[in-house]
This record gives sequence, C-alpha cells and structure tokens, in this order.
Amino acid sequence: MKIDGKAWRSIWVQPDGWSVGIIDQTKLPHAFITARLASASEASHAIKSMMVRGAPLIGATAAYGLCFALREDASDNALNRAYAFLLAARPTAINLRWALDEMRNLLLPLPPAQRVEAGYATAAKICDDDVAICENIGVHGLRLIEDAARDNPEREVNILTHCNAGWLATVDWGTALAPIYMAHDAGVNVHVWVDETRPRNQGAALTAWELGKHGVPHTIIADNAGGHLMQHARVDMCIVGTDRTTARGDVCNKIGTYLKALAAHDNGVPFYVALPSTTIDWTIEDGIASIPIEERAPEEMTRITGRTANGDLCDVDIAAPGSPAGNYAFDVTPARLVSGLITERGVCAASSTAMLELFPERGK
Amino acid sequence: MKIDGKAWRSIWVQPDGWSVGIIDQTKLPHAFITARLASASEASHAIKSMMVRGAPLIGATAAYGLCFALREDASDNALNRAYAFLLAARPTAINLRWALDEMRNLLLPLPPAQRVEAGYATAAKICDDDVAICENIGVHGLRLIEDAARDNPEREVNILTHCNAGWLATVDWGTALAPIYMAHDAGVNVHVWVDETRPRNQGAALTAWELGKHGVPHTIIADNAGGHLMQHARVDMCIVGTDRTTARGDVCNKIGTYLKALAAHDNGVPFYVALPSTTIDWTIEDGIASIPIEERAPEEMTRITGRTANGDLCDVDIAAPGSPAGNYAFDVTPARLVSGLITERGVCAASSTAMLELFPERGK
Repeated sequence: MKIDGKAWRSIWVQPDGWSVGIIDQTKLPHAFITARLASASEASHAIKSMMVRGAPLIGATAAYGLCFALREDASDNALNRAYAFLLAARPTAINLRWALDEMRNLLLPLPPAQRVEAGYATAAKICDDDVAICENIGVHGLRLIEDAARDNPEREVNILTHCNAGWLATVDWGTALAPIYMAHDAGVNVHVWVDETRPRNQGAALTAWELGKHGVPHTIIADNAGGHLMQHARVDMCIVGTDRTTARGDVCNKIGTYLKALAAHDNGVPFYVALPSTTIDWTIEDGIASIPIEERAPEEMTRITGRTANGDLCDVDIAAPGSPAGNYAFDVTPARLVSGLITERGVCAASSTAMLELFPERGK
Repeated sequence: MKIDGKAWRSIWVQPDGWSVGIIDQTKLPHAFITARLASASEASHAIKSMMVRGAPLIGATAAYGLCFALREDASDNALNRAYAFLLAARPTAINLRWALDEMRNLLLPLPPAQRVEAGYATAAKICDDDVAICENIGVHGLRLIEDAARDNPEREVNILTHCNAGWLATVDWGTALAPIYMAHDAGVNVHVWVDETRPRNQGAALTAWELGKHGVPHTIIADNAGGHLMQHARVDMCIVGTDRTTARGDVCNKIGTYLKALAAHDNGVPFYVALPSTTIDWTIEDGIASIPIEERAPEEMTRITGRTANGDLCDVDIAAPGSPAGNYAFDVTPARLVSGLITERGVCAASSTAMLELFPERGK
C-alpha cells in the first residue's frame, strides 16, 4: 500500500537484484527506517527481533534468507543447514515452516547450479501468491463494506478493527485491512476505529500508522471503548484478522477479540474475520478447549517504549512497582459470535458446513 | 487501609489540629508523596490537579477547604465565596456539590464565631460517614466472597476488578475493594485480577499499588484479557465500582466495564457492582439513552507517564504520530448483565423492584 503517496510492499528485492529490503517494524510508529538483508543470519535476526512480523511476511523473509545462503553454497548440506537455521528463528511460526518446506522441496531435486535462480523465483512467487490471496480477501470483503455504504448513503461506514492485520503483517494489502483499503481507494467513505491493542499496542502503533500513511481516516481508541461505541450505533461492522481458525469456525486472534465479538453480538453489529484459508486448522473443532494460549513476558504489560519531547525513544515502567502482571497473547472467539469468514474464495458462515462448501477438498 | 503495615486514610487532619494531609495521587504508583493542604486554594488545586480523586475524597477535601477559608474569615460573604470557589474546582462532581451544600447549610445559620469549630466537626463527620458506608459495603460483599470460598475450598477465590474503586478513591476501605480487603483480612485466600484500565491506567497504577501495599495477592492484566480468563474458569466473580447507577440498575462506570460484564454473562461468572446508595440516580431509568458520556483529551490515549531506568518520571508519546485518538471515559452496563448491587444496606438485584425494596423511602 502507499506511504505518503508512494506504493510499497513490506519486503522487496533491492536494485542490486539479490539483497532484500524490509521496513524495520520495531521502530514503528516512531521512525520509518528500512533495512537491507543480505545473509541468512540477517534474515534470521530480522525475524527473531521482530523487525518483520506477521505470518506471511515471516515466511517470505525466510525464503529470501535461504536464497542468500544458497548464493554462498548451493550444496544439499548447505541447503539443509540454512533450512534448520532459519526455522529456529521462530520455531512456532507455522507459516515460516511452510515457506521453508516449499523452498526446500522445490530446490533439493534441482542441480545445485540452478538452485539460486530457482530459489529467488520461488521466494518471489511466495510473495506474489500472498499478495494475490490478500487481494482476493479484499475483493470479497469490499462487497460487505459497499453494502453497508448503500444502507447509509449519507454518512461514513465505521469499521472497528483490533490489532494489526494490515499490509505490514503480510506482503501487501493485509487481511482485515485489505477490504478497507479497497473501499477507500474505490471512493467509499470509510472511517476505522483502531483498537490500541494492549499490551503490545499493534493497533495504535502499526494499524494507525499504515492507515494514516495511506490516507485512510481513522481514530485510535482504548480497547475498552468499542462496546460503548457499538451501543451508540457508531460501529457499522467489525473486521479482524486471525492467527488460527478451527474447522467449525472458532477464531483464535489477539487477546481482546472475544470481548469485541461479544459487544458486536449484543448490539447487532456484524463481526467479520478475514483470513487466508491456509490459517484454517482443519484438525480441530473446539478452539477454546484445543488451542493453547501463549503467555508472554510480563514486561510487555508493565514497560512501554515511546518518544520523549525531544524525539528520543525511551522505555518507561508504567505499573505499580513490584506488582505481578499476566500477559495472555490470544483469545478464542466462538463461532456463534462470528458473522462471517472473509477468505480468498469468498465469504462464508463460521460453521463446518459453510466452510466445507467453500473448501470442498477438505471434506472427508 | 495499610501501607506497608501502617494504617492510613486518604485524608487526615495533621498534628497541628487544623491543616490536612493527603496522598498526592498524581505521583502514584511511581512515588508515595504526601502533601499538606492549609488554604482553600490549596484544596481547590488538589482537586483540580487530581492529587485527590474519587467522589467521596473530593467531597471531603472540599469540606476541609471550606474550613480553611473560614479560619481566615467566617463571615457569610466569605463562606459563600469559598463555596463557589471550591465548587468551581470540578463543577461536574456531584459529590463535591453535595459536601459543600452539607457544610454551608449547617454553617450559615450559626454565628460566625462558631463556624470554624462546627465546620471541622462536619468535615470529620463527612469522612467518618464515608468510611462507615464503605465498611458496610465491605461487610455485605464479604459474604459473597465467603460463599465462593466455600464452593471451592481447595483454591483461591479469583476476583476481577476494573479501574480503581479502592480506598484511594474514598476515605478508607473503598467500594469494590472493601469486600476484598475484608476477605483478605479475614484469612480468605483471595487473588485479584486487576484490569490495567486504559487510558488512564487506574488499575495498574492505583488498584495494584493499594492492593500490593496492603498485601493482597493480585495480578495486573490487559483490559483485553478478562474474557479469556473467564472462558477458562479463572475468574470466580467480578466486582467493580460505579459513578452512577440508574433507578432500574443500569450502571455507568469506567469505559470497558460493559465488555467485562458481557464476558461474565457469557461465561456464567457473577458480576457485582459495589456502590454507596448516594450514587444512585433515582431520576433516570435507561442509562444508555440518558447518561451523557464524557469525552476527555486525546492525549490521555497517546501519551503516558512512566519511570525511566534511572527512576526519573518521563512522559512519552506511544501512538502513531498525527493519528487522531478518541477518549471516551465511561460506558453503561445494562442492568440485565449485573448479578447484584452491593450497597451499604445489603445486596440486591439490579432492578427497580429490588432496589426499592432496599430503599423503600425512594418509592412513590
């Protein structure tokens, strides 16, 4: 999407034809700094340190990381070593393993001399495929926003989102934000309520930043505020992303998503979840019982980075000294609270039947 | 309640017998600093700058402020001037007006020479009455906690609270926290989930501080986390305070309370609201339609004060630069989501009938 009028992706091959550029997302929203990755260790470091985050972008970064390794040594041994090394950067990221498997399965059968070129082509395809999937999510979600705009032609369509499911988390477009960018670009009058998304503040830091840079009207709100806004008919729909969706449509996403879904349900506000079908876990049904929820460092709750008056970045402690903090990263929204899943193939109800109709190849 | 083993109130007459001590709550949780108030302007400043906050404590501070003015000039004119001056410190605080009315109505009929002594006696009574009300709320709420403890004798009783309805907001005990302090002091194994309470962080800053200083086990969590904890049976009950309750039991409280009440309802967790009956607004029924919600400065969302590594306090900007922010201070929880109101007279259902049974003098 655009930054101050210029089109960007979250990862790109540099003019030298082989090294790769990324946006250092650890510096956002305080500073816009790009970084050049030119070795497998730099790619691994970028993933580990969260300079790049979001499942699709992590996968793409690892794919290029493998290319860098192959430029130095394209042997089977080197390929397997680089695979293991990059996979270790964030061992629980399913998409990281998927991208590395794609690369290795395609490259190992080839003669070493052809591997670098084929590797770059595959990495580029991984990126382009992700863009195409997000674009299709955008096209299907756009119709929902256009319908809402037709229902209320005199005023803006107010959409609430939680966390960051934007182009910074993918290669371009994003998932939850793709329909919003398309609506905005098509001239629909959209306004986005951006949940701050404590404790890591991905909403206030990343979603607000990317919407602002692209020129989409938005307002940052406390995670506490969505219910009040829905009670007063100031939200027309919610669109959020997801890390994992179960076969019956339970949605695991950033902590707090469930609370917004409850408020949407209580106020008759449609609650949509945008997702690439690759994040559907067809092996489980009950998300609350089956999905373990990561607990992260308490310091993410009690310490925060911000800009001082003179522009320096500074970490400050904000909670009562010595008080323990709990940091639960995700929650599960039961399918009964989800109005629809926006996938690259279309929109369907959050139910086994509807999901299998859209993805019949998953039926038994 | 106690700070490191020593009993405190949030306001007290100094050993000199006339000036008043307070805790500078703007410095909490980063530093524990008391301040001495000795003039009406110092009392007004303490209210305006939120060195003191919470309806009962604001009223008590204003009452003593009036005493300070009378020590200098006890004439009718001076009394009326001080009344108006102190009322202007926070014109929308209902309890501030109530305390000043109490003082003026009692003092104006007296000869000026008796006003100072009678003023101090009335201010002390306002404080003691508030302590007695909170203590009674505590006694009634304690039974609910003891019942929960009996249901699960092998483990702790987990109570979730939002914002700060503790002794710092009153003169002593607090409202929502009074039953918790009593349970803890009575040896019940309680643990409190403390909602951070964005944007002003009264939970992480004030509730965690006062629970910690009194020795009550607690854990700070993101406002987003309560639903997840309730889904996994890690919350036995919620107890929150309220700024205003309608005649049918709709509850206006800090923004985000409604979302927790929805989650409690969805998971069968009792949701209690603790309140002095003076905060019941018998003139309105529908809280969502009738209570205007204050919108505060966006900087409360985008800027935060914390401690740097060397212990200095520092304000930092945390959101995407230039992104607008909305700051809605309260929301309304419909009576249907409230399991019970804990008042100084006992616990009742959140309904006109039950409330009038407990407060029959309000019946028509």
